[in-house]
Amino acid sequence: MSLENKPKIAISIGDLNGIGIEIALLAHAKISKYCIPIYCINKSMLKEAAKLLNLQIPEDFQIHNIKGDFEIKPGIVTKKSGKFSYDSFCEAIDLASKNRVSSIVTLPVNKESWNKAGIKYKGHTEVLRDFFGKNAIMMLGCKKMFVSLFTEHCALKKVPKKINEKDLTTFLIDFQKSVNSNNIAVLGLNPHASDNGVLGDEEVEIFKAIKKANKILNENIFKGPLVPDTAFSPMSRKNYKYFVAMYHDQGLAPLKALYFDQSINVSLNLPIIRTSVDHGTAFDIAYKKDRKLNTKSYINAVKEAVNLYEKRK
Amino acid sequence: MSLENKPKIAISIGDLNGIGIEIALLAHAKISKYCIPIYCINKSMLKEAAKLLNLQIPEDFQIHNIKGDFEIKPGIVTKKSGKFSYDSFCEAIDLASKNRVSSIVTLPVNKESWNKAGIKYKGHTEVLRDFFGKNAIMMLGCKKMFVSLFTEHCALKKVPKKINEKDLTTFLIDFQKSVNSNNIAVLGLNPHASDNGVLGDEEVEIFKAIKKANKILNENIFKGPLVPDTAFSPMSRKNYKYFVAMYHDQGLAPLKALYFDQSINVSLNLPIIRTSVDHGTAFDIAYKKDRKLNTKSYINAVKEAVNLYEKRK
Repeated sequence: MSLENKPKIAISIGDLNGIGIEIALLAHAKISKYCIPIYCINKSMLKEAAKLLNLQIPEDFQIHNIKGDFEIKPGIVTKKSGKFSYDSFCEAIDLASKNRVSSIVTLPVNKESWNKAGIKYKGHTEVLRDFFGKNAIMMLGCKKMFVSLFTEHCALKKVPKKINEKDLTTFLIDFQKSVNSNNIAVLGLNPHASDNGVLGDEEVEIFKAIKKANKILNENIFKGPLVPDTAFSPMSRKNYKYFVAMYHDQGLAPLKALYFDQSINVSLNLPIIRTSVDHGTAFDIAYKKDRKLNTKSYINAVKEAVNLYEKRK
Repeated sequence: MSLENKPKIAISIGDLNGIGIEIALLAHAKISKYCIPIYCINKSMLKEAAKLLNLQIPEDFQIHNIKGDFEIKPGIVTKKSGKFSYDSFCEAIDLASKNRVSSIVTLPVNKESWNKAGIKYKGHTEVLRDFFGKNAIMMLGCKKMFVSLFTEHCALKKVPKKINEKDLTTFLIDFQKSVNSNNIAVLGLNPHASDNGVLGDEEVEIFKAIKKANKILNENIFKGPLVPDTAFSPMSRKNYKYFVAMYHDQGLAPLKALYFDQSINVSLNLPIIRTSVDHGTAFDIAYKKDRKLNTKSYINAVKEAVNLYEKRK
């Protein structure tokens, strides 16, 4: 890939009191093979972080300037680091929505720091929903399997009531458009996918949504409802790369059991592309020595951002 | 291990129209290293099956006689095969409860065949509960990890209401006695284990049960409530071998994603020991040629039956 063809990607730098900036510096050379990263930070903050980490700043480390210098306090929740990470993300969104970058990759922010800084959102996805006024779809995974979540951060007791034909049909259609796959597994809700109604009845709605979505797309794309506990068995994973889970842990527990380190988080169904690492700020190990950070999730997030961009072109 | 020290194990032969008998014949030499298997079948049925399978009957294949000859119909649900598999299981229970064998290993039965034969139970565990009048605990897994289920075949919407301090405390104490471990992970119910009550409140009951059970046992045995989606990550699995899941798919989806072929099913909290393969009768491939049956689950079930017996001695 020649330099000119590589897409520009805005890197939302995350909470500077956490591990994000170290990951960015360590993986810069590697991700530069796939894209031209534009880091949403500023020179003095970058210098301070690099000095604390005892790392060199790569010569081709391009910056998009974010205002607001502050003292980095490794592993501490502070108002200023919360504000800076939020501003970095907003600027990245701005760059993407003006087509000055092809997509955004986000490093982890800290909910508590955002809260301290008076930011009303709980995380990146909420900001994106609000900014674009669109129902972002949360998908997590890696090259081998991706799981999208029909319900996300929702108490388990509230999940069954949310399963209905209309909303699920919309979700399926939106999801299919985003990933452009013609083979998508849709999970049931109950043990044994209800064993024909013996254990719950929500599978009726799921079945209807699958049928309707396939009819709308005029193709037999959605399969299911799959029995949840065998949906992620090695045999079943040979048949599917994309899964729709009815709730958070149904999809994420098997994913994290199998591919914890490699997984990324993708926001779909938005005007812009955004991928993210699937881990937090890891305050407990931020700026520490004698341990190696795992940069797999970040590198995979960048690769998938490039991949989704290529698909959209 | 000398022959005299090997424990006798009753093998409930399962549905003879399914794959069980082939597994028993194939794995006989291997399991005979660990135990003296006593097969609950009869000579003429054994001969018929072996002939259909074109397999030799090993010379040391000890039989405990079950009455009721019938014609084997590979892959077909029949009343007679249902009745025979039920009788085989009941005789195995009888042998175990009279201490004539150390434990039972069950090969798969077919729910529909039992139903056709007028047997009111849906599976082995129900029979055991009824026979012994005790609350059997269902645990699935393999050497690397075991998951016990606080709720089993229960519609998801009914699960949250079943989480209460009293029942869970009893379950934890019974489970600990059965596996004799001093380090057991207890999962939360909600995403992020409720994030301090933001996503559901059942974790309060789980927390209280953990605290109470630890107090009763006077040792810090139960840990949790663990965040469900990371409970089975590689890092977390380094810390725990035994997990208590709040519901069926929470524990079994990650288990089957990781260890589908090797897993077994264990009935705990009963006067006798019973382990089982974690697969069904596989009618679609019964008595077929040119495919190799996987006997791992069966062999592991035998090994665990021996292991649990040694622990109890």
